[in-house]
Amino acid sequence: MSQIAFESGLDKNAANYTALTPLSFLTRAAEVYPDYPATIYQGTTRSWSETHTRCKKLASALSRIGIQAGDTVAVLAPNIPAMYEAHFGVPMCGAVLNTINTRLDAATIAFILEHGEAKVLLTDSAFYQTVAKALQQLKSNIIVVDIDDHHAGAPQERLGTIEYEEFLQTGSASDYFPLPTDEWNAISLNYTSGTTGNPKGVVYHHRGAYLNALSNITGWEMSDHPRYLWTLPMFHCNGWCFPWSLAAIAGTSVCSRSVSGEMIYQAIKDHRITHLCGAPIVLGMIINTKEQDTCTIDYPIKVMTAAAPPPAAILQAMEDRGFHMTHVYGLTETYGPAVMCAWKSQWDQQPADQRARLKARQGVRYQVLEGLDVLNPDTMTPVPRDGVTVGEVMFRGNIVMRGYFKNLPETERAFQGGWFHSGDLAVMDDDGYLRITDRSKDVIISGGENISSIEIEDVLYAHPNVLEAAVVAMPDEKWGETPCAFVTLKQGTQCDEQQIIAWCREHMAHFKCPGKVIFSELPKTSTGKIQKFRLREQVNGNTATRG
Amino acid sequence: MSQIAFESGLDKNAANYTALTPLSFLTRAAEVYPDYPATIYQGTTRSWSETHTRCKKLASALSRIGIQAGDTVAVLAPNIPAMYEAHFGVPMCGAVLNTINTRLDAATIAFILEHGEAKVLLTDSAFYQTVAKALQQLKSNIIVVDIDDHHAGAPQERLGTIEYEEFLQTGSASDYFPLPTDEWNAISLNYTSGTTGNPKGVVYHHRGAYLNALSNITGWEMSDHPRYLWTLPMFHCNGWCFPWSLAAIAGTSVCSRSVSGEMIYQAIKDHRITHLCGAPIVLGMIINTKEQDTCTIDYPIKVMTAAAPPPAAILQAMEDRGFHMTHVYGLTETYGPAVMCAWKSQWDQQPADQRARLKARQGVRYQVLEGLDVLNPDTMTPVPRDGVTVGEVMFRGNIVMRGYFKNLPETERAFQGGWFHSGDLAVMDDDGYLRITDRSKDVIISGGENISSIEIEDVLYAHPNVLEAAVVAMPDEKWGETPCAFVTLKQGTQCDEQQIIAWCREHMAHFKCPGKVIFSELPKTSTGKIQKFRLREQVNGNTATRG
Repeated sequence: MSQIAFESGLDKNAANYTALTPLSFLTRAAEVYPDYPATIYQGTTRSWSETHTRCKKLASALSRIGIQAGDTVAVLAPNIPAMYEAHFGVPMCGAVLNTINTRLDAATIAFILEHGEAKVLLTDSAFYQTVAKALQQLKSNIIVVDIDDHHAGAPQERLGTIEYEEFLQTGSASDYFPLPTDEWNAISLNYTSGTTGNPKGVVYHHRGAYLNALSNITGWEMSDHPRYLWTLPMFHCNGWCFPWSLAAIAGTSVCSRSVSGEMIYQAIKDHRITHLCGAPIVLGMIINTKEQDTCTIDYPIKVMTAAAPPPAAILQAMEDRGFHMTHVYGLTETYGPAVMCAWKSQWDQQPADQRARLKARQGVRYQVLEGLDVLNPDTMTPVPRDGVTVGEVMFRGNIVMRGYFKNLPETERAFQGGWFHSGDLAVMDDDGYLRITDRSKDVIISGGENISSIEIEDVLYAHPNVLEAAVVAMPDEKWGETPCAFVTLKQGTQCDEQQIIAWCREHMAHFKCPGKVIFSELPKTSTGKIQKFRLREQVNGNTATRG
Repeated sequence: MSQIAFESGLDKNAANYTALTPLSFLTRAAEVYPDYPATIYQGTTRSWSETHTRCKKLASALSRIGIQAGDTVAVLAPNIPAMYEAHFGVPMCGAVLNTINTRLDAATIAFILEHGEAKVLLTDSAFYQTVAKALQQLKSNIIVVDIDDHHAGAPQERLGTIEYEEFLQTGSASDYFPLPTDEWNAISLNYTSGTTGNPKGVVYHHRGAYLNALSNITGWEMSDHPRYLWTLPMFHCNGWCFPWSLAAIAGTSVCSRSVSGEMIYQAIKDHRITHLCGAPIVLGMIINTKEQDTCTIDYPIKVMTAAAPPPAAILQAMEDRGFHMTHVYGLTETYGPAVMCAWKSQWDQQPADQRARLKARQGVRYQVLEGLDVLNPDTMTPVPRDGVTVGEVMFRGNIVMRGYFKNLPETERAFQGGWFHSGDLAVMDDDGYLRITDRSKDVIISGGENISSIEIEDVLYAHPNVLEAAVVAMPDEKWGETPCAFVTLKQGTQCDEQQIIAWCREHMAHFKCPGKVIFSELPKTSTGKIQKFRLREQVNGNTATRG
C-alpha cells in the first residue's frame, strides 16, 4: 500500500527511528535502577549498574581481541552471571551469541563450534574434559576464555590463556558501542538439540529478541522487578528470551549451576522467587521434593512450562502445591515460547481435571506473533476447528527465526508456502486453542488409525503409581504399528504390565491401548526431553500382537 | 555494522517478517477472547467479536466509497464506541485516522479538515452547529457520515447523507484487508492544540503505535482484561495509544460522552474500573466530588496523569482517596506518554509531602523510547545532573513522530541535531529523573534570574484554600518581569492578595514570589490545559513593583 500524501518530508532520521534491540533495555535498567539487583549467585549480588559495566567491559574486551560485527562468540556455561552477561556483552560489540548446551558430547560441541565459525569460546571450568576433547577435534582457531567458577567444585585446568574475570579487566567500560543500525542483524545462533542428524543453527535477530522479550512480559502479565529463578537453561533458546525480558523490567536473575527440587524451594525461602520456567522435568522435581525440604508458599509464584505437553496430572499437582501454572509452547525456531494457553476466568469454575485438561492445551499466539494456525501441509489450508482433525502447527511473524545458518535447503523447506512448518501435529478446538497431538514422527499408525502417543501418556501419567511415561510405535505384524509404553514407577510403588494395560483400557479406546509395557528409566536429552528415538531403537525388531 | 556471514539465505519472507501494526492486536483479541467485552456504553456491551466485525465493516464501507491507502478520514466525536472503532476500522483499509478535538471552533476545524485533506468526516450529531459552520468554510469536498447518538440529547439535524450505523451496514465483514506491508505507513494524524498559530499535524506510524501500545502495558504493569474508563479524550494523541493497548490485552473500554467526578465514581461502582487516565483537571473533578457521590475504593485503581506537571498537593489528595497515581509525560509528538515517573519502593518510606514531590517529577523514559535527555540546545550536550541547571527536554526513538504533515520547516526545526526538541525546559536530578521547570515561553525572567512559574504554582496549590493557580510573567519596570499569580479559591473559602503573597514568602525565595495576585476563573483549552497566553494578554501592559 502506498500513502502518497504521507511520503514527503516524513522520513526516518536519528530522532524518530532506532533499530529495535534488547540491548536498550539494559541501558535503561542501569540508568533507572542502578542499585537494584540484576544477578544473585552464591551470596554475591550485582546491581544493574555493575552488570551494565561488566557487559560493557565484555564487549570492549572482545572488541580488543579483534571480534568484529557478525563474528560468532560461543559460550558453554550453566546459569551463572557470566552467562547472563554474555547475552548483552556479546551482541553489544556486534557479535553473535552462540550458547552451547552443556550436556552435549565433545563431537557435537566441535561440530557446533566449527559450523558456527566461533572466534571465541567462553567455557565454564566444570566442563573441562569434554571441551578439551572438542577443541582437539577442531580444525579452526579459536580463542578460549575460561570461566573459573570456584563454586564448580575442584579447580580445573585451564583451556585458554585467560580467565573470564581477568578478561573483563582487559576491556574498558568507557569504550563506545553504538546500537546496531539494522534490527535484522543476528543477535544469536542457537543449535537445535535435534534427535537425529547434525544440529541446525537457528539465527535470531535483534528485532525478534526485543519483541519476544516484551511479549513474555505482557503475555505472562509480569510486573516490574520480578525475582526470577533460573531453572530453565539459558543455553536453551537464549532462556526463552527471558534474559532480555528481565532487563526490560529490571528483574533479578537468581542464578544456579544446577536444578533440583531442594534448590528451588531453598531459593523460594531465601529470595522470595516470583517466577520460574522449566520443562516438565523441573515440575517433577518440585512435586517430588521431600516434604522436609519444601516450604509453605503464601504468595503467588508463577511457573511457565513447555517443551513436552505437560500431563494434566502434573499441572494439577503443581497447582495443589501453590504454583500458578502457565503453559506455553514454541520451538527454538520461534525464540522459545510463541504460543500460550491464555487462561479464561470462566474456566475457574470447572472441575479440577477439566481445568488441567484445558490448561494442557498449547493455546493461542503470543501478542507479537502475527500468525498461528493448524494447516493441512498439502493444501496449506486450516483444518476445521473440530478438535479432532490433525494438521501441522505453522507460525508466521517477527518471532520466527531468520533461518538456519548456512543451510539454505532446510531454511527453504521450513518456510515453504510462507509459513514456518513446526513439524508438530495438532488439532484446533472450536475456541481457537490448539492442542498438540504429536510430533510428526511420534504418531503411531495402527490399522490405518492415527494414535497420539501423547494421549496415551496422559492416561499413564494419571495413574497414581506412574512417575514418568513415554509411548512409541512398535512394529506389529497385524496392525502395522502398536503402542509400546515405557513407564517409570514412583519410588516404593508397584504395578505390573497387566494392571497398567487394564488402567488404559478403562480410560481410553481399546485400540489405542499399549500392546506392551516396559518398566525402566527413560533416556533424556540434555534439556530434559525424553529421547523417544532411543526407545524406538529399543523396540525396533520387537513385535507384539494386540488382543 | 555488517554481519557478512549472516547475510546469506537469511532474508525476510512471509513467514518471518510482518510489519508491526496495532491492528494485529484487534484480530488476536477477537480470536482469543471473542466473548469478552470490548466496549461498554450506556447499557450496551459489545464483545471483541462484535467490535472486530464492526471495525471490518467500517473499513469495508470506507473502501467501498473510494477511500484508498493514504487517504485521511477525520472523526469528531467524544469517547463513544464509534470513536474506538475508528481507531481500527480507518487504518484497516489503509487510511489515516485524523481525530479532531470536539471543543475546537469552526474555523480551526475547517483548517484541520482542509490541511489534513480529509476525504471523509465521521461527526457526532451533538456538534452539529460548529461542524456545519466548519463545512461551510471548507473549499474541498468531503463525505460526511453522521454519528447519531441518541444519548447526545435532542436529535440533531443531519450534515451528511448517511448515519454511522447505516454506513457500517454498507460494508461487509468478509472483505479482506491485508495488514500494511510497511510499518512506517501513517496510522494517524493528530493536530496539536497549540496556543498560537495554526495547528501542526503530527504524523504517527503503525510501528510507533504498536510499540507505544505495548509500552503502556509494560510501563504501567497492566494485567489482562483491565476495565478502562475513558476520561482521557480519544481525540488527544489517539488516547495516548490506549485504544491499541486495550486490544493487546483484551481490556474493556468503558465509554462516556462527558467527564465529571460523579460519572467517574458511578463507573467505579457499576463497572469496577481498574484504570483511567487524565489531565490534572480530571483529578480535580475526582477530588472535588461531593461526598455523597463518592464510594469507598477497596481495590487498586490506577490513575495515569500528565499534561501539566501535577501539583504535589493534588497527587497526595488522590492517593488519600485510594487511587494509585502514575505520573507520565509526553507530547503529541511522542505518541502521548513517553516518559514516566517510575516509582521506587524505597520511596514508600518517605514522608507524604516528599513522596508527592518525588512523584511530581516527570521521570525516565518508557521502555520503548530509545533516548531521553535534558540538553543544552546550543551545544546539544546534556546538562549536569544537579537538579538545578535548566536545559531542554529532548527525545529520540521509535515513539517520536514521523514529522509534521506538509510542514518541512517545522519538521526540520523539531529534529535539529538528531533529537526531537520538546520546547519544555527541565532539570535532571542526580538519579536521572527529569523534572520539567517550564515551557520555554513560561519562564519568568526577573532581574536576570529565571523563575519557574511551576515552582510558584506548586506553592500556591499547597495553600489550603487554593483550587487552581497559574502564574505568568508580568512586565515590570524595575525587574523586567515579575510573576503574576491567577488564583481560583475553593468554594466557601476566603483569602486576600496579601495572605497569598505572605504564604509564598513563607515557602519560597522572596524574589520568586508573585508581585500581584488576581482572583478569577482560569481559561482552559479544550483538553483542560490552562491557557496561559490568555492570562498573559490580561496582564500585558500592567506593571507592578516588587517589595
